[in-house]
Amino acid sequence: MALPAVPLAGLAGVSAARCLICRNCGTEAPLRAQHACHSCFGPLEIGYDSDLLARVTREQIEAGPKSMWRYAPLLPVGQDAAERVTLDPGYTPLVRASALADAVGVRAPLWVKDDSANPTHSFKDRVVSVALTAARAFGFTRFACASTGNLANSVAAHAARAGVPSMVFIPADLEAGKVLTTAVYGGDVVAVDGSYDDANRLCSELTETDEFEQTAFVNVNLRPFYAEGSKTLGYEVAEQLGWRLPAQVVIPMASGELLTKVDKAFAELVELGLVGAPPEGWRVFGAQSSGCSPIAAAMHAGVDEITPVRPTGIAKSLNIGDPAAGLYALESVRRTGGWMDHVTDDDIREGIRLLARTTGIFAETAGGVTVAVLRKLVTTGKLDPDAETVVFNTGEGLKTLDAIDGSVGPTYRIRPSLRAAKEAQLIG
Amino acid sequence: MALPAVPLAGLAGVSAARCLICRNCGTEAPLRAQHACHSCFGPLEIGYDSDLLARVTREQIEAGPKSMWRYAPLLPVGQDAAERVTLDPGYTPLVRASALADAVGVRAPLWVKDDSANPTHSFKDRVVSVALTAARAFGFTRFACASTGNLANSVAAHAARAGVPSMVFIPADLEAGKVLTTAVYGGDVVAVDGSYDDANRLCSELTETDEFEQTAFVNVNLRPFYAEGSKTLGYEVAEQLGWRLPAQVVIPMASGELLTKVDKAFAELVELGLVGAPPEGWRVFGAQSSGCSPIAAAMHAGVDEITPVRPTGIAKSLNIGDPAAGLYALESVRRTGGWMDHVTDDDIREGIRLLARTTGIFAETAGGVTVAVLRKLVTTGKLDPDAETVVFNTGEGLKTLDAIDGSVGPTYRIRPSLRAAKEAQLIG
Repeated sequence: MALPAVPLAGLAGVSAARCLICRNCGTEAPLRAQHACHSCFGPLEIGYDSDLLARVTREQIEAGPKSMWRYAPLLPVGQDAAERVTLDPGYTPLVRASALADAVGVRAPLWVKDDSANPTHSFKDRVVSVALTAARAFGFTRFACASTGNLANSVAAHAARAGVPSMVFIPADLEAGKVLTTAVYGGDVVAVDGSYDDANRLCSELTETDEFEQTAFVNVNLRPFYAEGSKTLGYEVAEQLGWRLPAQVVIPMASGELLTKVDKAFAELVELGLVGAPPEGWRVFGAQSSGCSPIAAAMHAGVDEITPVRPTGIAKSLNIGDPAAGLYALESVRRTGGWMDHVTDDDIREGIRLLARTTGIFAETAGGVTVAVLRKLVTTGKLDPDAETVVFNTGEGLKTLDAIDGSVGPTYRIRPSLRAAKEAQLIG
Repeated sequence: MALPAVPLAGLAGVSAARCLICRNCGTEAPLRAQHACHSCFGPLEIGYDSDLLARVTREQIEAGPKSMWRYAPLLPVGQDAAERVTLDPGYTPLVRASALADAVGVRAPLWVKDDSANPTHSFKDRVVSVALTAARAFGFTRFACASTGNLANSVAAHAARAGVPSMVFIPADLEAGKVLTTAVYGGDVVAVDGSYDDANRLCSELTETDEFEQTAFVNVNLRPFYAEGSKTLGYEVAEQLGWRLPAQVVIPMASGELLTKVDKAFAELVELGLVGAPPEGWRVFGAQSSGCSPIAAAMHAGVDEITPVRPTGIAKSLNIGDPAAGLYALESVRRTGGWMDHVTDDDIREGIRLLARTTGIFAETAGGVTVAVLRKLVTTGKLDPDAETVVFNTGEGLKTLDAIDGSVGPTYRIRPSLRAAKEAQLIG
């Protein structure tokens, strides 16, 4: 592990974050750029000073900015606005979706948490803002990532805003929308002939080289910080519901990390007394595409092991065949009494159209996955149609136009005359 | 003019709007679905009760939602949140653009008002929210528009959210991103073999037919309401600057309406005492593409007449060859001591890249036009580089990917191995 020359200055003193802590063996390490436990090679997360967290109040949060940074007291970085590397994402709409509820057979309130409203139009802006703010504090001089597309967009845009060089690694077969909108920010874009998993492995290897010693890979050596950003999605849902938790959430899974962090956010809010504990808890549901469903497959098989797959299908932003947080996602879903399922490419397209028609929200394929899985979970009886439910849309339909091209289009084509309008039967 | 069967109920009583008023002859008419003066056929705008407007305070606005509806007291509709037809657009970021300032030679503070952050990623969500809220109050049962793309996206999405049928009319040669993302919302999309101006004329004719009597064309029979929505962009800039006006604004022009309404918003804020009058006023600059510059051409020729053109070029969202508010835009720019200019397609592409590289904001072609015109205005000495300036980005780059395709792309393509990284000289 190449450590940066400049040590972390000031993070421990100003935030409630205390250390890195191994999710497997509990070994602690100082707050620094490190993603695996030196004892057991397990993944690390942020450990907090629970006394400091306990002082955080609803009023303090509500007085903050209308962005994810209102939750800075619950994050390891970002307490000082001037030190943030950020596009100020978050506080995205929580949209009541009654027509969608009717369409899929949910009778209780149904909500869509629409994270396509973030600056680069995916939830990745949240994790990148946390990771890069940490990266700057650690003294890194270049920002990087391996990405299925959305993360690359976000890292490149954050780097441009901050005036820092960037280099992102993407599978060469990504949607054009995700390649162009990353390249336009002027950083380096490395197209890798292989899958996301291949690109990710290459990045892990590059972190060990001299040339990348000063490079922050947000989802490799900054991963513990990066992952914390996802908690803000959970916090926001609770606050936007009036400081209470929904009974059920349906969350798309790529690495599985987002799902575990929303679950963690809910648990933290209860522990800190910021929301009451719902009498029956909350149930977490995971959504994958059939082209890449290693976590859901383990759930269905009832096993504790994830068998990596080679991803296929249109839901490219979810195409992680070897999901880093898969086991933790399984744990969250099993512990809360939820379920996981996966859907076909046709289901995904129909999910995109259904969400758009009923809510005015145009989601990327990951959102189509989540809506289609919601419908399937109702049909199969796994999700309680009489319990309040939140589904997460994590990205923007404009980035995956290829996926719906041919399945929607103009309903009429006419010349600009009343006669043509008549021939098309628009008028009598 | 087909008037709706259901009269406007309650708008006059709850808002400060008092009547429709002709921009040419001053003739007044009741608040209703009407866009041309019955006396002189001039365009109508909203007339307000100045005593009611004078009661509006900064505190009242600041206590409102973080959306354009915080300015509801200054709008003709939307005072009652439950009655709005809206995706809650507005309160979009005002981003300090120091690196862009350096690049174009502006020495004073430079800001980008980024309206790509709206729900359907253009400023049109503002005008549509006002127009459709009025339309529902008037009893219309179908929502419609003629559009260069962004407006169609917004009308279709608003209609989907509200559960109301929609029919939008677009030029058949629009960017794929704007066609698909309109069609996906499930309303009718009519592709017209012709220009925006042709589609707009057809819509004007259709409003007179029985079949469209209950159809609200947001930019035809609802135009006076529609246009008011653009004022909120001006209000927000002033509030986000700490309740003061910038010395200069650079605004893209299609119909020219947005420019006139930002100017109007500034004048209203001064008149109402919500901001102080800047000692030297504010100067308004208009931006067009060379493929469609009828307003800038009149400015350069020093004439009071707009000669319609047949639009060409990549800035399709600005391609209105016969701009309805062109003369009013000329008046605003001349009165305030500003200027207009136009730029080539290559300039526009470079403007998009420059904005992205320096701010992390990925604009559609209209944003590229505005940035390129900013640069030109500095070069030609028309814009004061030592005066604070705000440029308006009105749309999202993801909708016009075609425009930059081929001009940006991956910087490297490699196999996923350290050896390949070495061959590409990423490492030594």
